[in-house]
Amino acid sequence: MKSAVEGLEAKGKAAKAASRRMAYLSTEVKNKALHNIAGDLLTKKGEILAANQIDYKDAKALGMSAAMLDRLMLSSSRLKSIAHDVLAVAALPDPVGEVFDMRTLPNGLLIGKKRVPLGVIGAIYESRPNVTIDISVLCLKSGNAVILRGGRETIRSNTVLAWLVQDACIKAGIPDGAVQFVESTDRALVNHMLGMRHVIDLLVPRGGTELIRFVSENATMPVVAGGVGVCHTYVDKSADLDKAVAIAFNAKVQRPTVCNALDTLLVHANIAERYLPLVAVEWAKAGVEMHCDKRALTILKSNPSWKVIPATDEDWGKEFLSLVAAVKVVDSLDEALEHIECYGSGHSEAIVTEEYGAAMRFLNEVDAACVYVNASTRFTDGGQFGLGAEVGISTQKFHARGPLGLKELTTYKWIIFGSGQVRP
Amino acid sequence: MKSAVEGLEAKGKAAKAASRRMAYLSTEVKNKALHNIAGDLLTKKGEILAANQIDYKDAKALGMSAAMLDRLMLSSSRLKSIAHDVLAVAALPDPVGEVFDMRTLPNGLLIGKKRVPLGVIGAIYESRPNVTIDISVLCLKSGNAVILRGGRETIRSNTVLAWLVQDACIKAGIPDGAVQFVESTDRALVNHMLGMRHVIDLLVPRGGTELIRFVSENATMPVVAGGVGVCHTYVDKSADLDKAVAIAFNAKVQRPTVCNALDTLLVHANIAERYLPLVAVEWAKAGVEMHCDKRALTILKSNPSWKVIPATDEDWGKEFLSLVAAVKVVDSLDEALEHIECYGSGHSEAIVTEEYGAAMRFLNEVDAACVYVNASTRFTDGGQFGLGAEVGISTQKFHARGPLGLKELTTYKWIIFGSGQVRP
Repeated sequence: MKSAVEGLEAKGKAAKAASRRMAYLSTEVKNKALHNIAGDLLTKKGEILAANQIDYKDAKALGMSAAMLDRLMLSSSRLKSIAHDVLAVAALPDPVGEVFDMRTLPNGLLIGKKRVPLGVIGAIYESRPNVTIDISVLCLKSGNAVILRGGRETIRSNTVLAWLVQDACIKAGIPDGAVQFVESTDRALVNHMLGMRHVIDLLVPRGGTELIRFVSENATMPVVAGGVGVCHTYVDKSADLDKAVAIAFNAKVQRPTVCNALDTLLVHANIAERYLPLVAVEWAKAGVEMHCDKRALTILKSNPSWKVIPATDEDWGKEFLSLVAAVKVVDSLDEALEHIECYGSGHSEAIVTEEYGAAMRFLNEVDAACVYVNASTRFTDGGQFGLGAEVGISTQKFHARGPLGLKELTTYKWIIFGSGQVRP
Repeated sequence: MKSAVEGLEAKGKAAKAASRRMAYLSTEVKNKALHNIAGDLLTKKGEILAANQIDYKDAKALGMSAAMLDRLMLSSSRLKSIAHDVLAVAALPDPVGEVFDMRTLPNGLLIGKKRVPLGVIGAIYESRPNVTIDISVLCLKSGNAVILRGGRETIRSNTVLAWLVQDACIKAGIPDGAVQFVESTDRALVNHMLGMRHVIDLLVPRGGTELIRFVSENATMPVVAGGVGVCHTYVDKSADLDKAVAIAFNAKVQRPTVCNALDTLLVHANIAERYLPLVAVEWAKAGVEMHCDKRALTILKSNPSWKVIPATDEDWGKEFLSLVAAVKVVDSLDEALEHIECYGSGHSEAIVTEEYGAAMRFLNEVDAACVYVNASTRFTDGGQFGLGAEVGISTQKFHARGPLGLKELTTYKWIIFGSGQVRP
């Protein structure tokens, strides 16, 4: 164990040293590394899939669930898709080096901010081996060094992929040490990593809620974690019924297991009797179970083919991550806003309305990372927002909110050009 | 104690509720509150100074140092100066409501970011009662609610000032509860406050290094703390000697007790024999003690009127906060960069040079909040940088770096205008 900790510290030191040089690397070199990675994912397919097969067999023998096995598994087509994503990041503009807020002060000092990488990113992740590539590529493009610590269940796949990335980097001229991979799967190393604030500038946990909670609570450095998404869609009295049905359907059904899926549907009392049966018909086709407050229940209970049950107190503010939606009838926009303020998790909230004033009040007054008018909350995603890729979705307010792309892996420094100025 | 904790939680709840409405308050109302505060500081002078006198007498009786007593004391002219600063903040542009990065996606979604307040700011501070006004005013202007927890030694002054602020806010139409003041000076309340991450979005400690360290290490929410400033000035071989003397003198002498003052002077070997005696003459006039490496010592030891002693290992990377400077001769810009990388604290670093390439390398390669060419590091200050005011100077990389003004007390939310879009 002692030597594993020493090994991790040595990797940290190497990453820190590399990060200093990463900060002023040309976009050309960084993109070359990304192109190398994309190419090698295809040419080294045999090696990668062979390693992945061993992980897969071991995980299966240990009784891992089918869903988890599916997340773990790589294939030719999955590698192609990962390589495609790498090239997409290569095609994005380089965030580093942008100079902004530049101006000349009355004393002649020319002063502004220059965008620079954060430094060293730590990633602690589980299961899906593509994260090794995703995080490496986002860090490289944004000029950060990275320390990767994947899960025990994909150690062989991750080892091959990390080696591939390191090799691709060396061939492109990226400073030695920029991508560090922790081979040991000893759990104690995670604890040690959480204390390495002298090296790691930002920690990114990717995986189950348990991992994310543990990292968030115990890390000594800043953490960006895809938080809980309790997402509301409020159908206002003036809503267009077709749009409201399509949006609620998409938000709940298109991918129910993710954080930006609809959890609670709020419906204005004036429109509830017309709207609720329409959405219930569509949701029933997809197998959605509706947990209804009293008024919604009264409207919907007539049709026994709909999965409608009474809501309990626990349904409000619950992230279902499945084909379940809580449904509540409200008397006003104010009541909807209060409900969201009380139960929302600050992730994604939507209003469906044709009334300008209601739309603007909702946009102004809802405090969440992403606030929508007449659109599905499912759009909360780096790719959908045009950021190309994302390291996660932040529900915290500090540093960055919502999908975190390349720019959010950077910070700035003040640069000041003087000609001998001293402070009076 | 239990009731004091309950009281603090109630204040937190009230601040949180107020903060929701503060977010979309008009600039006019916020500025009106600031003008009220500035006015009341003058009209209620008698009351304020009477309370401050009691604090002063008690502190003196308890044997507080003259320096501390001076920080604690208010006077007519100090109140005038505080009122003047309040009006300066009122005159600054409102950061809230700015919309940026707005664009239309291929699917027709109009998407962008809107600047919003962080929410509730907690302030834990010592000694200087003007902080009650400073922090309140910055929070109000940036649309944040605030919970103030001042020191025991100024409890009476702070109580009057907080009441003044609250009254000025009510008269202006600021939501009730926006400015909360913790009357109890029980230390245990600070510990409780550090755990209130459900209420407080950002914690600002102001005071001695001990307070700042304690808050930074124990807070469960983000903290911005004026960190340690170990500031280097590197005099390059091509430096203009006059500029280099003036800059080093200003950086060390103009106010030696603050974080942006010079700690270590690095001098290129080619220029050291000409430069060091020049700066030693000037520094000697101000009583600066020089802790020199061997080569600097050889150059400077000839004149017994200069305060020159050999440097020890502890001098490198030390924040002196007094009229002491470490001095080292280096053989190259590279050696200077390595020294700064090793010993700097990421605060403010400067190069004095007439060589374009050296200036650009220094700007690019030094990783600090503020990097200067040919200017004194003493400029690192919100007022000097044109931010009007500051809550502190950040040496962390996350969220914001360097002087923190109104904008740094804000975050953003994504706003998305749709017309029925759903995710394919």
